[in-house]
Amino acid sequence: MDIEQLRADTPGCQTVLHFNNAGAALMPRQVYEAQTAHLTREYETGGYEAKDEAAERIAAVYRSVATLLNARSHEIAIVENATRAFDMGFHAIAFRPGDIILTSVAEYASNYLAYLRAAETHGVVVRVVPDDEQGQLDTAALERLLAEPGQERRVRLVAVSHIPTHFGLVQPAAKIGVLAQAYGALYFLDATQSAGQLPLDVDAIGCDLLCSTGRKYLRGPRGVGFLYVREAILPELRPPFIDLHAATWTGPDTYALRNDARRFENWEANFAATLGLGAAVDYALTLGIAPIWSRIDALARTLRAGLAAIPGVGLHDRGETLCGLVAFSIAGLRPEEIRHALRERLNRPNGVADARPINVSTTTPMSVLLDSGNRTVKEWARASVHCYNSTKDLDEFLAAVGRLAEQPALAQQTDAQGR
Amino acid sequence: MDIEQLRADTPGCQTVLHFNNAGAALMPRQVYEAQTAHLTREYETGGYEAKDEAAERIAAVYRSVATLLNARSHEIAIVENATRAFDMGFHAIAFRPGDIILTSVAEYASNYLAYLRAAETHGVVVRVVPDDEQGQLDTAALERLLAEPGQERRVRLVAVSHIPTHFGLVQPAAKIGVLAQAYGALYFLDATQSAGQLPLDVDAIGCDLLCSTGRKYLRGPRGVGFLYVREAILPELRPPFIDLHAATWTGPDTYALRNDARRFENWEANFAATLGLGAAVDYALTLGIAPIWSRIDALARTLRAGLAAIPGVGLHDRGETLCGLVAFSIAGLRPEEIRHALRERLNRPNGVADARPINVSTTTPMSVLLDSGNRTVKEWARASVHCYNSTKDLDEFLAAVGRLAEQPALAQQTDAQGR
Repeated sequence: MDIEQLRADTPGCQTVLHFNNAGAALMPRQVYEAQTAHLTREYETGGYEAKDEAAERIAAVYRSVATLLNARSHEIAIVENATRAFDMGFHAIAFRPGDIILTSVAEYASNYLAYLRAAETHGVVVRVVPDDEQGQLDTAALERLLAEPGQERRVRLVAVSHIPTHFGLVQPAAKIGVLAQAYGALYFLDATQSAGQLPLDVDAIGCDLLCSTGRKYLRGPRGVGFLYVREAILPELRPPFIDLHAATWTGPDTYALRNDARRFENWEANFAATLGLGAAVDYALTLGIAPIWSRIDALARTLRAGLAAIPGVGLHDRGETLCGLVAFSIAGLRPEEIRHALRERLNRPNGVADARPINVSTTTPMSVLLDSGNRTVKEWARASVHCYNSTKDLDEFLAAVGRLAEQPALAQQTDAQGR
Repeated sequence: MDIEQLRADTPGCQTVLHFNNAGAALMPRQVYEAQTAHLTREYETGGYEAKDEAAERIAAVYRSVATLLNARSHEIAIVENATRAFDMGFHAIAFRPGDIILTSVAEYASNYLAYLRAAETHGVVVRVVPDDEQGQLDTAALERLLAEPGQERRVRLVAVSHIPTHFGLVQPAAKIGVLAQAYGALYFLDATQSAGQLPLDVDAIGCDLLCSTGRKYLRGPRGVGFLYVREAILPELRPPFIDLHAATWTGPDTYALRNDARRFENWEANFAATLGLGAAVDYALTLGIAPIWSRIDALARTLRAGLAAIPGVGLHDRGETLCGLVAFSIAGLRPEEIRHALRERLNRPNGVADARPINVSTTTPMSVLLDSGNRTVKEWARASVHCYNSTKDLDEFLAAVGRLAEQPALAQQTDAQGR
């Protein structure tokens, strides 16, 4: 992997040290230009007319996403973001009262809130599969919960975040798929943090639905995401919302849903973002997802080892397989103080006026309520690496964290509540 | 109104004759630059970090949209498009079996499909208010239908497209509002074609919900729209989808919805498009909606008169108040042939090599099934004017239509079905 080329493709590398790839990664030039080129055509010739011109390129985006997932393009819907993709797929399932949804401890708030909404609407029951000793979903416990209901009730859905939002765990997606299939449950994998980070193959994983976003590890635009739906289950899913793109109005009281996964879209979209997503997927496929994953894995190991060597720094990742998200804390500092201090370079060495901002993110207990309930430390900072991060970036990051850990007073703030 | 300045702000005027403002209008420079400037910051500094920088400007977009509607900013949700806005508001209504929805003959397919979906899910009954002799919704008939159910059943919702997608009618929105309020029905006005075209005041109209889009008469971006929800009815509406932006996960089985209209949003958005929408609304407010409407009205009258004078041209608008959408046909040509011929300038005068493309749109019976069922001519071309169109644009358009009407053979095509 030619890191210099990757960085040359990514002008943001010159202005920031970006460790917020799990929030939104820096776009390569190809993605930025795909968007601005389409906006320019909309500006020059009209929005509908620009879409007509781009029809072939828009169709190619579906093929690219399908290739990324080892799916087929008619199994792909391109929608506004991963949450909308999740909602459109999830709420299309014909739940019956008493149906069981199994999910993970580390589930993302937005997905769990959808389960609670379905509990209200359909009387479904949500059960949480416990973690095993290493911190990932316990597949033996999953199998017991799948087997338990017997003939009387059914586990309708197993829904899992492949990589949680707040730390480095990679869930055993394929093992979960084998079990879901064996017990006849639908399997929805939320790949929001994994698409573009590690290889995804919907057949190898055995998922029936999968959602993800453009802006994270795929390095695509904000405001675009996608939903994969296995062709075999399309007929049993009824989109919660339908419009004249998803369905044809066939008579005063009748309509016909379209046959493909685009029944989960609606007619209007931000086509600049769609084309940016396509450019992002093509860029990743050209590099190869396996080499990207190797590089991220190596960088994350280096980062965790470096952080572990700093007195006062805590690491909070758990699980057998860890990824590019690194959860850390610094004694004496709240996560928001860490984020602010790194962004503003409050701790830069004397005489270094032009130190680039360091971007990290923070997590809050309410975004992962069940997991944080089990934790002693309930919130932390999140540094997330991508293949274009350099080892020099890592060194500078570790030095900055080291200075903060040594002198936390540099970054301590008193907020309005006097905390 | 300084037309030269408007056109200088709109570089697209140099490259096309744009009469597809009801599809997507040409953006002014301010809208284009608001989007590209934000994309550039995302590119340089990261997607989340660029949003943080823009926080004040994003908050201002809500205030601008509220000003446009005479609403308050906490009554505004900014979502992906008018269809999503409609769906999020409509499906949040707690329908009971037998509840009646009253709508118009000219209703847009996507909205009507939502009613049919609610008929499946909740057992609601959809009734269509007939048109009066002039072609708009018959308010006397509306009152009879509102009064008819008496105490046993209720009209839960009156839902109307302010301006239909396919011709120039402006529905009597405020008269409908008086009746809906008198009979205790909710009133949802779809202002997709009217926002930015004519003055909208949610209090004067008396609507409880209103949706619209960025790309049409507001001249904003594609892929962004908004929903207005009157504060007083917020507590009775439960969004069909919720995420960690719309709600807070308060305990393993509990959540709390946020208090404002942003409960209809989700956390992620295309913030470049949000900022572009804000720039579009600000641009329109600076010009003044009343002057924009006067100018559109004058241009549309000139256009209708000019078309009426051409032998072989049919006009299909109906209603007491007509707007910038002009429905027309040319004898011997299918709408798609008209659109193609004007775009490609198949009929340009000999020796004129550089004639700018003329953009119009077409409508199909399935997008307005009920209305087309009542019509002899069931599909046509749609020319839609905006304030930046010049009288010279109109003259050139009328000349081009005149040449087509005289020599339709220039544009007749044989498609794959040999029609």
